[in-house]
Amino acid sequence: MTISVIDKNGYFSGSYLTAVTTQKKVEIKKSPISGVMVPSSQPIFAFHVNWTFSDSITAFTGQCFVDSSGERLETMWLLKATAGSSDDNWASTRVGSNVFRRLI
Amino acid sequence: MTISVIDKNGYFSGSYLTAVTTQKKVEIKKSPISGVMVPSSQPIFAFHVNWTFSDSITAFTGQCFVDSSGERLETMWLLKATAGSSDDNWASTRVGSNVFRRLI
Amino acid sequence: MTISVIDKNGYFSGSYLTAVTTQKKVEIKKSPISGVMVPSSQPIFAFHVNWTFSDSITAFTGQCFVDSSGERLETMWLLKATAGSSDDNWASTRVGSNVFRRLI
Amino acid sequence: MTISVIDKNGYFSGSYLTAVTTQKKVEIKKSPISGVMVPSSQPIFAFHVNWTFSDSITAFTGQCFVDSSGERLETMWLLKATAGSSDDNWASTRVGSNVFRRLI
Repeated sequence: MTISVIDKNGYFSGSYLTAVTTQKKVEIKKSPISGVMVPSSQPIFAFHVNWTFSDSITAFTGQCFVDSSGERLETMWLLKATAGSSDDNWASTRVGSNVFRRLI
Repeated sequence: MTISVIDKNGYFSGSYLTAVTTQKKVEIKKSPISGVMVPSSQPIFAFHVNWTFSDSITAFTGQCFVDSSGERLETMWLLKATAGSSDDNWASTRVGSNVFRRLI
Repeated sequence: MTISVIDKNGYFSGSYLTAVTTQKKVEIKKSPISGVMVPSSQPIFAFHVNWTFSDSITAFTGQCFVDSSGERLETMWLLKATAGSSDDNWASTRVGSNVFRRLI
Repeated sequence: MTISVIDKNGYFSGSYLTAVTTQKKVEIKKSPISGVMVPSSQPIFAFHVNWTFSDSITAFTGQCFVDSSGERLETMWLLKATAGSSDDNWASTRVGSNVFRRLI
């Protein structure tokens, strides 16, 4: 995940190269990120990733912590896959958590 | 929720005037939306709302359906509140669902 | 969903015959429910369903409301599918919501 | 968290002594667990905890993994607090993740 400079309103963009996919036999591509951060010493943020190789989008929320465990983004996410119809929509959202650390 | 024109890459912005808050005694204000949509007949999308009156952000994912039940956005969301520290972060994310319909 | 009598500690069991599955070509069977309720005028509860026809389990939480919209259980749920390994576990939990009403 | 022997149908009970609460000034007490496991080499399970010191219940789902990272339960959970009314119910469910390891 690469994040651009954050503008004065907290908006940022970037790109995300994931290592994993729920679909077999697709080529993973770098996908665009768009997000917003609320400035503070331990800022909260949200961003979404539009998976260009897949009919799905992930929305992340989280907070940046810097303490004795180091600097990291602690996130929760929803991964929405395209449902064929409203009747199938109940099963189309996955949930999980991720911790991101800065590459040195 | 008011959504602007969607650009050629699927990005949109807008504003959200919620009726509810988890905090008492705050004045609810119109808050900015930023999102992205993957074009299709039943497009999936993600957007986030930066609650300007509150230390929290909501990330939505969902899909637009148009069928015998009418046109609507079926969404799931994560509402992230600011945690005082990483130790308190476990309790800072709420989850829920919402259905949005177009105002006529 | 059929719920047995609730014991003095709030525990109940029952069975659930779902109409939907995430797997094609499986025969849907009645599956056991086990749960607990905290008695009050609008009780909260949790229960889980062990899908006997599928390698998955759903955990529900929710609350019973009786008001001008009638009597109903408003729930959120996590559907856990078996992951082949810890590396695949990130994608094995779905989230959603359901409202249940009493059959007359 | 202490888990009893698991019966032949996969049901187990036990107790949970948490270190954290969302409510200040409550005395944390050991709370009952009730759950079910689907037997396999890496079993999935669900269990719920009825927090006896609080108007809330947590439902967990997850899977047991034993690999080079050791034996552990990887879980996701929903924490349901009592809502005063259906109108307030939208904000009453928290979501998160936990990894449990065996005490030696």
